[in-house]
Amino acid sequence: MLTDMEISRQAKIRPIGWIADDFGLGRQLWREAGHSMAKISLDAARAPARGKLVIVTAVTPTPHGEGKTVTTIGLTQGLHLLGHKACACIRQPSLGPVFGVKGGAAGGGFAQVVPMEVMNLHMTGDIHAVTSAHNLAAAAIDSRLFHESRLGAEAFAAKTGLKPLDIDPENILWRRVVDHNDRALRHIQVAFGDNNGPVHDSGFDITAASELMAILALCENIADMRSRIGRVILAMSKSGLPITAEDLGVAGAMTAIMRDAIEPTLMQTLSGAPCLIHAGPFANIAHGNSSIIADRVALAHHDFVVTEGGFGSDMGFEKFCNIKTRASNIAPAAAVLVVTLRALKANSGVEGDEQSRLEAGFANLQWHMSNVMGYGLPLVVAINRFPDDAMAELEWLKQRCMAEGAFGCEISDAFSHGAGGAKALATVVARACDSPSSFQRLYDDEMDFGARLMTLAERYGASGVSLSDTARADLALIESLGLSKLPLCIAKTPLSISHDPALKGAPSGFELPVAGLRLSAGAGFITVLTGKVMTMPGLGLKPGYLNIDVDERGDIIGLG
Amino acid sequence: MLTDMEISRQAKIRPIGWIADDFGLGRQLWREAGHSMAKISLDAARAPARGKLVIVTAVTPTPHGEGKTVTTIGLTQGLHLLGHKACACIRQPSLGPVFGVKGGAAGGGFAQVVPMEVMNLHMTGDIHAVTSAHNLAAAAIDSRLFHESRLGAEAFAAKTGLKPLDIDPENILWRRVVDHNDRALRHIQVAFGDNNGPVHDSGFDITAASELMAILALCENIADMRSRIGRVILAMSKSGLPITAEDLGVAGAMTAIMRDAIEPTLMQTLSGAPCLIHAGPFANIAHGNSSIIADRVALAHHDFVVTEGGFGSDMGFEKFCNIKTRASNIAPAAAVLVVTLRALKANSGVEGDEQSRLEAGFANLQWHMSNVMGYGLPLVVAINRFPDDAMAELEWLKQRCMAEGAFGCEISDAFSHGAGGAKALATVVARACDSPSSFQRLYDDEMDFGARLMTLAERYGASGVSLSDTARADLALIESLGLSKLPLCIAKTPLSISHDPALKGAPSGFELPVAGLRLSAGAGFITVLTGKVMTMPGLGLKPGYLNIDVDERGDIIGLG
Repeated sequence: MLTDMEISRQAKIRPIGWIADDFGLGRQLWREAGHSMAKISLDAARAPARGKLVIVTAVTPTPHGEGKTVTTIGLTQGLHLLGHKACACIRQPSLGPVFGVKGGAAGGGFAQVVPMEVMNLHMTGDIHAVTSAHNLAAAAIDSRLFHESRLGAEAFAAKTGLKPLDIDPENILWRRVVDHNDRALRHIQVAFGDNNGPVHDSGFDITAASELMAILALCENIADMRSRIGRVILAMSKSGLPITAEDLGVAGAMTAIMRDAIEPTLMQTLSGAPCLIHAGPFANIAHGNSSIIADRVALAHHDFVVTEGGFGSDMGFEKFCNIKTRASNIAPAAAVLVVTLRALKANSGVEGDEQSRLEAGFANLQWHMSNVMGYGLPLVVAINRFPDDAMAELEWLKQRCMAEGAFGCEISDAFSHGAGGAKALATVVARACDSPSSFQRLYDDEMDFGARLMTLAERYGASGVSLSDTARADLALIESLGLSKLPLCIAKTPLSISHDPALKGAPSGFELPVAGLRLSAGAGFITVLTGKVMTMPGLGLKPGYLNIDVDERGDIIGLG
Repeated sequence: MLTDMEISRQAKIRPIGWIADDFGLGRQLWREAGHSMAKISLDAARAPARGKLVIVTAVTPTPHGEGKTVTTIGLTQGLHLLGHKACACIRQPSLGPVFGVKGGAAGGGFAQVVPMEVMNLHMTGDIHAVTSAHNLAAAAIDSRLFHESRLGAEAFAAKTGLKPLDIDPENILWRRVVDHNDRALRHIQVAFGDNNGPVHDSGFDITAASELMAILALCENIADMRSRIGRVILAMSKSGLPITAEDLGVAGAMTAIMRDAIEPTLMQTLSGAPCLIHAGPFANIAHGNSSIIADRVALAHHDFVVTEGGFGSDMGFEKFCNIKTRASNIAPAAAVLVVTLRALKANSGVEGDEQSRLEAGFANLQWHMSNVMGYGLPLVVAINRFPDDAMAELEWLKQRCMAEGAFGCEISDAFSHGAGGAKALATVVARACDSPSSFQRLYDDEMDFGARLMTLAERYGASGVSLSDTARADLALIESLGLSKLPLCIAKTPLSISHDPALKGAPSGFELPVAGLRLSAGAGFITVLTGKVMTMPGLGLKPGYLNIDVDERGDIIGLG
């Protein structure tokens, strides 16, 4: 069996200009970034949408993932093989998981974006740009605090001509970010030493969870990005007023840092189908969908655009529907739900023989099917086949899915057979896109915070919600700013439909505990921290970096 | 008067492929990175050197800089205009100064690398790669500390099959880095909270001061980079043994992150002459020279290669001679010393009329001339002219320089007139390169730490050296590792030849205080922290970011 890396290395990679030509992009609309990538001008999004958007989601995954990106890429390759103009829109991998547990995020087997190591490491630097813009704002707020504290407000104003901001060091809301799994940075204290400012609490999140990453994904153009960045709230003043990036005068510089990042990156799949890569992952703690700009660019030039939301349909898909489509107003035409026998068995919560574990775990799939169909979308279940899956189990599962009301259910062999292995799936997905649908969101624009949260919690199976004192205080602040009707971005474990990774299958009757809220006034949502979720992962006992190296020719080995 | 940004924007920028053709690079030796940049394969360094290397340095600068990069680019443009094949090799700008005080670092006026905003912001992402590789090692060492503390050495070994490292949390030598001026991160404490590891001291340096940046600049190829990264010492064990990146198993992954960064980036000057940009600035706290690889690539294809060392000749030039040429074995053919009337007057340390301040400040220039000529190099003084400089003062200065033994002295008008304004300078520099020289370093390979430090201190004018207790302990450790004969990388203020910014002109009779030492076993030098030098700058009262923004077309404004 070849590794993902070996398959990628043996691939015949076409010059990226050929891919851009096939895409239908005029030469002025793209610029080469190495032989295998191109940055696409936002002018490419100006033509009206001609294609249909397919959203790929999954059941509750195991920590290894269930092949959602494999299926997204495979389905795109399958549609391409059937003669459709098809494009995938996916997120840039984070270095956290690449060097942590999971390996790369470019798909796998014969359903990959290539060269996989180029996509997995830096790509065109978008995540680094988000990190840099985010941390400039952090340095700026701490520096302003330092200078105002040192001089006093009056002297500061006299010396600089700037209005004092009177920052409350106990109420700096803006953390810092780094694109690694760095547990020790979750909670830190800064500004020790002589003359570095008042010591205060701080911490780092992984870059994918930065509000700036969400702004990159949700904005329409550079002017929209600029004004959203201006609205980002960095801290509160001692008199309780919000201090924005605009107030601090740093919003323009932050936008300048992200100017190139706003352009999606074009790469190719193993079959030569195009793939746009834009914005970041981590749908457990972030909104975790690829960008609206990439979707528009792709929809203007293709019949089918396949995108994905991270983790199960309780996570990235929910945020796709309730956050992303609110900003974009692009309704998907159909949904694909990826399932594996492995995930269902792992999610059964029971011991026993294979068939009984499978049957117990089916409750999880039922929940996800019902969840997706509840949004009014035709649903195709894609069973991502592993080499030693039993045919009887696969057949049983297919029948159960059809009985549950799926528009279709197909086995996907894209991992092992690429485009050919996804042909049946592609055929039924194309049909689903032509079937009637009536996309609707879970909560409407007028519902207040409490009702929204209860609606989401009930959908997960909770019987109630409890807010910590911190969360109540956060809510009071958000209400005082008049922003409590923003959509919710639930941060929770992806390993259960609930907030508790130990609750398997389709749990119900639990109480959803909310530890705190974070306001993203620029991105336009409220992050709801549930259970023990953390916004910075840690490295495990035997992290992925141990396997990664360069060989004597400078080629990367051991990745994915 | 046009701004640098306006001049850059009005420039007729040639496709980078044309620049690569003129360079003499076959198509397989470069890959486009946007329209205006290309990454150059290391295979381009294989041909033997045919050109002469010119090192540009300066007198003690004011905080605004005295136009060393302007002169480096202008001189290259002037040599190009004279019909020579000439290339500049300079460092990538750090975002710290770009958003802090100084503005961009792409030259200025009509002696610039263009597009200046592309060079000043991210370029091809090399600094981000260094940041990321550095911080992966930091996350890895803290994570290993966490897991070993949590499980105990035996259980850790049993669970992972890895040898316990027994890291001493009080003796983690590897700090983190960020490419911003972030005062609050100079001294921090990490790992607060439940189950995040033992709380311990840490801090961030600016990325240019990362040992990995020095490795990038000093290595010969990917295998050399890989083995140097393996030798980096991250921490000490509780039993006093050094723990390297190789011991931690993270050296391969760090190298993978920096794989693309090892290729120099090709851009063009306003006159279309080529410029290779590689490695980082901050010659006050780092070694602060561009890379050996870029020099080799340029020397293989050009008659003249012009490079620069940061700040005055006591800083980047000294490190060029004593650190970089030790690794490269490329002797420079001539040196150019940049001076401005402004800098000399600012460095006079006296009040009074212009001529008397100029005469008092001349002592500083005398020191730098004598310092450079002490390395056995023909010296050309370049007076970087400002628009309202008095001609009589310029003439006086020219005569004094010739009387002091300069090979030549010319006024450089490159800022205002580009290549034409540097023609006279280029003519005399070309002649200097053909004159006899006998390059020699300040200290030889066999001298021990104390003798080396005293030799450097005496050159600065110090009558003695005092080591703090910390520095003595650092030295004892370095001696115990058998590494005390590595070259020294002095970290000190660039605003005086001494360690004290208040000591103007050519001070003498002071004692040089050493606060601490940092061992860079992979880069191959010992950093000597003198006076109150800090390895992380802070943002000033009115930082540069206040002026920077994007306009409605997405063009960056207010930069430089």
